[in-house]
Amino acid sequence: MAPLTPRVVVPIDVKKQPWEQKIPLHNRWHPDIPPVADVTEGELFRVEMVDWTGGRVRDDNSADDIKFLDLTITHYLSGPLRIVDSEGLPASPGDLLAVEICNLGPLPGDEWGYTAIFEMENGGGFLTDHFPSARKAIWYFEGIYAYSPQIPGVRFPGLTHPGIVGTAPSVELLNIWNEREKKLAETSPETLKVCEVLHQRPLANLPTPENCLLGKIQKETAVWHKVANEAARTIPGRENGGNCDIKNLSRGSKVYLPVFVEGANLSTGDMHFSQGDGEVSFCGAIEMSGFLELKCEIIRGGMKEYLTPVGPTPLHVNPIFEIGPVEPRFSEWLVFEGISVDESGKQHFLDASVAYKRAVLNAIEYLSKFGYSKEQVYLLLSCCPCEGRISGIVDSPNAVATLAIPTAIFDQDIRPKHLRGRPGPKLIRLPDLLSCSTDGHLPVIQDQSGRSEP
Amino acid sequence: MAPLTPRVVVPIDVKKQPWEQKIPLHNRWHPDIPPVADVTEGELFRVEMVDWTGGRVRDDNSADDIKFLDLTITHYLSGPLRIVDSEGLPASPGDLLAVEICNLGPLPGDEWGYTAIFEMENGGGFLTDHFPSARKAIWYFEGIYAYSPQIPGVRFPGLTHPGIVGTAPSVELLNIWNEREKKLAETSPETLKVCEVLHQRPLANLPTPENCLLGKIQKETAVWHKVANEAARTIPGRENGGNCDIKNLSRGSKVYLPVFVEGANLSTGDMHFSQGDGEVSFCGAIEMSGFLELKCEIIRGGMKEYLTPVGPTPLHVNPIFEIGPVEPRFSEWLVFEGISVDESGKQHFLDASVAYKRAVLNAIEYLSKFGYSKEQVYLLLSCCPCEGRISGIVDSPNAVATLAIPTAIFDQDIRPKHLRGRPGPKLIRLPDLLSCSTDGHLPVIQDQSGRSEP
Amino acid sequence: MAPLTPRVVVPIDVKKQPWEQKIPLHNRWHPDIPPVADVTEGELFRVEMVDWTGGRVRDDNSADDIKFLDLTITHYLSGPLRIVDSEGLPASPGDLLAVEICNLGPLPGDEWGYTAIFEMENGGGFLTDHFPSARKAIWYFEGIYAYSPQIPGVRFPGLTHPGIVGTAPSVELLNIWNEREKKLAETSPETLKVCEVLHQRPLANLPTPENCLLGKIQKETAVWHKVANEAARTIPGRENGGNCDIKNLSRGSKVYLPVFVEGANLSTGDMHFSQGDGEVSFCGAIEMSGFLELKCEIIRGGMKEYLTPVGPTPLHVNPIFEIGPVEPRFSEWLVFEGISVDESGKQHFLDASVAYKRAVLNAIEYLSKFGYSKEQVYLLLSCCPCEGRISGIVDSPNAVATLAIPTAIFDQDIRPKHLRGRPGPKLIRLPDLLSCSTDGHLPVIQDQSGRSEP
Amino acid sequence: MAPLTPRVVVPIDVKKQPWEQKIPLHNRWHPDIPPVADVTEGELFRVEMVDWTGGRVRDDNSADDIKFLDLTITHYLSGPLRIVDSEGLPASPGDLLAVEICNLGPLPGDEWGYTAIFEMENGGGFLTDHFPSARKAIWYFEGIYAYSPQIPGVRFPGLTHPGIVGTAPSVELLNIWNEREKKLAETSPETLKVCEVLHQRPLANLPTPENCLLGKIQKETAVWHKVANEAARTIPGRENGGNCDIKNLSRGSKVYLPVFVEGANLSTGDMHFSQGDGEVSFCGAIEMSGFLELKCEIIRGGMKEYLTPVGPTPLHVNPIFEIGPVEPRFSEWLVFEGISVDESGKQHFLDASVAYKRAVLNAIEYLSKFGYSKEQVYLLLSCCPCEGRISGIVDSPNAVATLAIPTAIFDQDIRPKHLRGRPGPKLIRLPDLLSCSTDGHLPVIQDQSGRSEP
Repeated sequence: MAPLTPRVVVPIDVKKQPWEQKIPLHNRWHPDIPPVADVTEGELFRVEMVDWTGGRVRDDNSADDIKFLDLTITHYLSGPLRIVDSEGLPASPGDLLAVEICNLGPLPGDEWGYTAIFEMENGGGFLTDHFPSARKAIWYFEGIYAYSPQIPGVRFPGLTHPGIVGTAPSVELLNIWNEREKKLAETSPETLKVCEVLHQRPLANLPTPENCLLGKIQKETAVWHKVANEAARTIPGRENGGNCDIKNLSRGSKVYLPVFVEGANLSTGDMHFSQGDGEVSFCGAIEMSGFLELKCEIIRGGMKEYLTPVGPTPLHVNPIFEIGPVEPRFSEWLVFEGISVDESGKQHFLDASVAYKRAVLNAIEYLSKFGYSKEQVYLLLSCCPCEGRISGIVDSPNAVATLAIPTAIFDQDIRPKHLRGRPGPKLIRLPDLLSCSTDGHLPVIQDQSGRSEP
Repeated sequence: MAPLTPRVVVPIDVKKQPWEQKIPLHNRWHPDIPPVADVTEGELFRVEMVDWTGGRVRDDNSADDIKFLDLTITHYLSGPLRIVDSEGLPASPGDLLAVEICNLGPLPGDEWGYTAIFEMENGGGFLTDHFPSARKAIWYFEGIYAYSPQIPGVRFPGLTHPGIVGTAPSVELLNIWNEREKKLAETSPETLKVCEVLHQRPLANLPTPENCLLGKIQKETAVWHKVANEAARTIPGRENGGNCDIKNLSRGSKVYLPVFVEGANLSTGDMHFSQGDGEVSFCGAIEMSGFLELKCEIIRGGMKEYLTPVGPTPLHVNPIFEIGPVEPRFSEWLVFEGISVDESGKQHFLDASVAYKRAVLNAIEYLSKFGYSKEQVYLLLSCCPCEGRISGIVDSPNAVATLAIPTAIFDQDIRPKHLRGRPGPKLIRLPDLLSCSTDGHLPVIQDQSGRSEP
Repeated sequence: MAPLTPRVVVPIDVKKQPWEQKIPLHNRWHPDIPPVADVTEGELFRVEMVDWTGGRVRDDNSADDIKFLDLTITHYLSGPLRIVDSEGLPASPGDLLAVEICNLGPLPGDEWGYTAIFEMENGGGFLTDHFPSARKAIWYFEGIYAYSPQIPGVRFPGLTHPGIVGTAPSVELLNIWNEREKKLAETSPETLKVCEVLHQRPLANLPTPENCLLGKIQKETAVWHKVANEAARTIPGRENGGNCDIKNLSRGSKVYLPVFVEGANLSTGDMHFSQGDGEVSFCGAIEMSGFLELKCEIIRGGMKEYLTPVGPTPLHVNPIFEIGPVEPRFSEWLVFEGISVDESGKQHFLDASVAYKRAVLNAIEYLSKFGYSKEQVYLLLSCCPCEGRISGIVDSPNAVATLAIPTAIFDQDIRPKHLRGRPGPKLIRLPDLLSCSTDGHLPVIQDQSGRSEP
Repeated sequence: MAPLTPRVVVPIDVKKQPWEQKIPLHNRWHPDIPPVADVTEGELFRVEMVDWTGGRVRDDNSADDIKFLDLTITHYLSGPLRIVDSEGLPASPGDLLAVEICNLGPLPGDEWGYTAIFEMENGGGFLTDHFPSARKAIWYFEGIYAYSPQIPGVRFPGLTHPGIVGTAPSVELLNIWNEREKKLAETSPETLKVCEVLHQRPLANLPTPENCLLGKIQKETAVWHKVANEAARTIPGRENGGNCDIKNLSRGSKVYLPVFVEGANLSTGDMHFSQGDGEVSFCGAIEMSGFLELKCEIIRGGMKEYLTPVGPTPLHVNPIFEIGPVEPRFSEWLVFEGISVDESGKQHFLDASVAYKRAVLNAIEYLSKFGYSKEQVYLLLSCCPCEGRISGIVDSPNAVATLAIPTAIFDQDIRPKHLRGRPGPKLIRLPDLLSCSTDGHLPVIQDQSGRSEP
């Protein structure tokens, strides 16, 4: 019997550009993007992928690449894959596609990643009003561990996962997406109360042919133009899975995806070496190229059987995930709390986003007492294995959100303690902490404290 | 050397009414509520407490008590306790009070609890638009385990915790609370976009002398009237801790509370045998009477040292929590996802509350396929050890929230599976599942499916 | 419906002597010891118990009580309990009795325990050749935590469990025990090669009427004399369960016990606040009085169904245990290894006892570098939640055993580290470490290093 | 900055024979085997290795290769590596070498392994008196998971680890080994009481030039003959580490090895995809080829600082291990117990090997009720992530050992349960379970029950 080396269905050569890969990539969701390969139920196969930007962020000393990154190029996805059963019959709309993640990791020879803060005017992030300038940290991997020269004193095992796993939408579902997002994008910011603390523009990224890559569809053909103008952007997670950024979706997990088109047309991408719940700085995971070893199972008729729509159509469903026994476990956590009162002191009503924002701000303020700049902590909380919880969502008017940080990732004791003789929190790190810059000059660590207390 | 039996500083007799207890209770936050006892730093002490309603919810077959529960009586708290150091000096404003939870549990002889859905017009809850009628489940305890005759087929160990741990606010902090909540309560619902999916009234519960209990302050005196009119309600968590409902705050945890008044004036209450993240049905934990065994430590000057305010005043801080190694660990989870698209199909912008609502609805729909009514699942997800996460908060326009349910609490395999011969999800439970009623007649299981797809 | 307060079937008054308790105790195994109460399958009930010595070890400053402890009195057990099904039919020989541990803990008002080294000539222990003199440490409990004035710098949560859970043996089984142990006791030490490193006398503790307590059987009657002369001692674990000392048998666990007599006659005792695998110092757990809350289930015919005898008769079986999800989890461990080469350098053949002895000695030597006396570490490794593993039992001639110690129980970093400036292991503790004595004078810390290298 | 791809210091080509590899391998321990490469402290490097037999066991349908395997060839090791500090100074005798396992796994393209029972007359094993005939199971890997066509119904994540990590012995240490093992081998079996239940011959494997491979030392030279006649065999773990078979030594672990020769001369080999504590069938792990990614640190003078000898010379030490937070965690375990009474009913004195043997036999008997042959279970318990514990080693005369099996690895519920209607344990598997044979004919499943009850 032959050994079970997984078949490589999408190989990646990281020395080549995304559009030069042997198996063409794509960066949009559309039913008409043709499959690049067939995969049989039960087969162990390997999909490789570029990092989400396709190599535009470099292992260097400047954050300029982040500052000027063109977001219309994202995310480069590997696939679509047509899934068939042992008799060759493809998955059909209405089936459930179970995708088991048997293994994953960085691509050999490319064992590094990055975490970044986008510029407020180009991408933004959860705390862009506090941290409006582009920053970057590089992470190097030592097997399962990551460390960053820009964020000294931390080292942690990666709970590596793909940010994006999804099936292709049907035409109907695509139309639903485009309509609802267009409607949101047209919303006058003045009426958007929830946005008061989330300063991000545009509100939604609508279809655009700019930088569109559509796999086997040849560029500038008629079909290319049609699809490019309709195809959904990859930034948000949606009914088909997509950019869910669920950090625990690691080795041994399973995703149950709804099937909307024949063959399911499974695509994956946006590999993360590690990510914190929320991925708060937006480019917030440790972003890298990587590989997945997957196994698929088709649950015939499973959508109807297991997924009840919550919404106006039968397509308003969401995938289900199964987390297995194989992940790093930490036993001690320091937990920061936020309530739905914003930085100006204004009371919001059961708003978990505001509460979580405050929890993250509290954690940043706290950890910055241990020798870190606030930007360093913001990046760290984006990518380390911290847990963001909705603890209370009913005790009006305050939602309570918490951010739990495993204490073991630090090389110092970060717990509050008595100050009598024992080492306190005021350990000062070396001044050259943050190597990224926005202007090609030396690193600039901007004092944001003024901004956080308007 | 004498054994370390903790000193009982607040005893409770569950056969008596809340206002008849030997050490008087209180149900408001105010700096002028006098301490009922002194506790010394390092001392192990025991605080007992009534359930949050003070015994108004009964172990019987009707949900009438829930339907008509007067929310102005809540929560009955034990304390305040004045914390002093080994030299007798009280904790001072600006200190940090570390409270270690050494042990806790139900009161001997009172080993039961309840979980309930409030009536839409009286209390509501996270999904009150879907489940507007009062319901109740009784839980019995077998040591660390709980089970309910009304929700058969589940049994789980309790991650027992106090819903409320807090210090007294200063006058200044109290004023901040009252002002910001009053302002919110006066908000016209029309401008409250975030409320489109959170149908709860009133938006905030303002001070009221009704049912006010103020500990040692004698009722109907002048000071009683003054305090009763100013004192903050106990429902939301705030800067002093309070009703944080953090489900992991169990044995071995520590709370670091800011001190706002001399002596700290620590109060606790609202014991939960178990709770899910979010406590979604509002009366959603397994509510019970109980005891805490605590140990305090004063970190002098710790507020300044460790808590940086996020807001307009130095009082805008939040407590920090430390979670220890002693809690039930589950190895397998089924995870439901929600995105910030509401039930009508409308797109919201990075709204974690909407995303979590959808995740909970997805979980309810899914589990209801295994023989449960939707109300049963709603209650179960309120009180079982499920985790609510903010997974993605930057992939505009969709926030992604997840709800993870440990599979081991069920007596059947709840994972999606192939339907060829193996037992599927369609196991039908006995029809008399839900024993609570709203009118004294037989149980009524209302079909909510129409409501969830407007 | 009435709340589920467990029925107390065996109450203990710790102010009374073991033989004065309301429900009489026993300290031997015999089929004719009559049940003290009936318990129905499915019922939640409470059994209280004295510590294994019945109060002979005191919370004082001398180890004299340990030195002169009469081992014929041990262990005082609560029971036997006759288990019947819902129709009143008792458990029968051949059934399997599932005993769930729903809760347990110290007795209120008696929250302390002790760990001790027995004198070589009276009890001994795994390392009695290295540590021949009696020593004692007192432990105080702060809820789930224990600490000892005699072993500073450690504090840990208890994985509390009963040392003894067992059913009564049948006459046949009792005879098997008495015969095989008598045969062993008569063995000439010269032929006992395995004992070269395990200096313990007697080899087995045979039946003796001395200090015999037989429950409801009145002392000095004919039946008392008969039973006392036949009844098995409680020190070893055997086919009926008994003194298994399985440290993980805590809250949420289940024991499946074979039933040898009608009614099963379940007895329990020897509560441990905490114990390390092996309980190496013999009086090595944190010994205490306590309570169990139990629930039984009778699996009819389960012995035949589930327990295949390994031995010459159908009675040569062992219980099965089920460990649940509720126990303290540590994430980082320091692991010491031993191979089956003894302290004289002699090679033994795949002897796991010798290998484990060496692993424990290695751990003692190592930890004694961090400011502890070797006796302190010996006691600590007996009672803290350390894991003793048989790692390799086939790589002849060396068995490999390991002892894993959770690093989080220490208040210093006990890992090997670079010595350049960072704090090394040579932290010296205060000199008054060990308060126990053997002669009423000041503590004596004997240098054992000479003994370990003969 | 260049990415951190680990430097490959020992590459393996699995298509070549062990003696044809580019960097020569070795299969003995001796100070004079020259290093094959230098490695600098702090450097991330990769060592590849053949499986322990160097490819002699095949992925086929017969156990003949196991039956006739020549044990003098084992184990093929990669190395020795000379470890130097950043200034080029080699590790010196008396230092401690910290080796961190950053990553490991099977070799790409060779993702399979095997577990086997040796013939009683050629290798044997812990239960060779019960299972005297050669058997084999093949395991295939799906990422982190393994499954075997020969043992259906189980699948588990591998806690992958190297069986062997060790430094070279000095001449003095080598002499100690050879002397003590020679003495043992000459022992008359009649005097070896502990061997009554461990039927293995020879008692120790002494140096032999047969099949000796000595790295860079050219075969048949004078130095080769000298070294081959002195060099220690690799089967047992010893003071230098070696074949410790500690199953938790996986990703994120650290080994602290004593340094006996200049440069440390680190060798590794015997990769295991997974192993149970004890590795009971001897060829009991899932044996495979593989790779390690390592990082070394030299703790100067660390032997004296951290390792106190237990034995007649300063060389009688053992390594220390550190287990990190990254390993599969199971929450539910079924635990089998054994006491030191052997299969004939004879009482042994605190013999943990006998007790563990009985625990394993009990587990085999139990699991064989669920449709498995006893040989299948014996193999499964050798290689699945089960834990073998020394629970009690002081309750004379019975040692108590336990074997804990994670229930989640089975596709059926293996716990004892009521037999009323619910599926019992009697699920019969297909008859063609065991594909291995001893004679080229069809599988033979021998009934061993007679042997286990002499």
